[in-house]
Amino acid sequence: MTTAQLDATFAALADPTRRAIVARLARSDATVTELAEPFDLSLPAVSKHLKVLEGCGLISRTRQAQFRPCHLEAQTLDAAVDWISEHRRTWTQRLDRLDEHLRDLQRATPSTKRADDDA
Amino acid sequence: MTTAQLDATFAALADPTRRAIVARLARSDATVTELAEPFDLSLPAVSKHLKVLEGCGLISRTRQAQFRPCHLEAQTLDAAVDWISEHRRTWTQRLDRLDEHLRDLQRATPSTKRADDDA
Repeated sequence: MTTAQLDATFAALADPTRRAIVARLARSDATVTELAEPFDLSLPAVSKHLKVLEGCGLISRTRQAQFRPCHLEAQTLDAAVDWISEHRRTWTQRLDRLDEHLRDLQRATPSTKRADDDA
Repeated sequence: MTTAQLDATFAALADPTRRAIVARLARSDATVTELAEPFDLSLPAVSKHLKVLEGCGLISRTRQAQFRPCHLEAQTLDAAVDWISEHRRTWTQRLDRLDEHLRDLQRATPSTKRADDDA
């Protein structure tokens, strides 16, 4: 996925109606009319959101002019998760390294009192 | 995380410079000057991006006026991943159900030829 596609995907997800459409399409494909119903939105308003979602590859639409069901493209969601997860992992590794460093320091410091010395 | 915070987090991640700052801060905390260096950006330009990242809770800054190192807040990344992953899971479960349904159909259909009949 290119930088521009990632920009567009995160921008598409930055709107609550578009996220609700993604959540709805995760359950099943749906037509514009079906998508408009629960949101109390006009068809043109939904169409506008769908164009944004289609533009970044989060959804696709078939060419059947009358129905044109919308389909979620899960691999675009995956690309967004992958980006975040990669850097989340770097962050965790950094904490792990810090933990290890602290343990090394503890090992290197002679203990003033050892519990097993009392036994 | 509220809907507005999720809106702001995805909007913050929709910019390549801000994503690069997140990636840099995943490795270690950094000051504005340190962050500005690799991007060939002015300090005010970086500060503007940092304000967006701070606004949605992706980064925090200490009150040490002179240095103010920026710190990545990993739990905000987690909230964004959680939202996407939840709906990604719904999508996978839907495919699983479809698979199961197809297997049920195959079992219900009497086979016209069974390989083990030949044995």
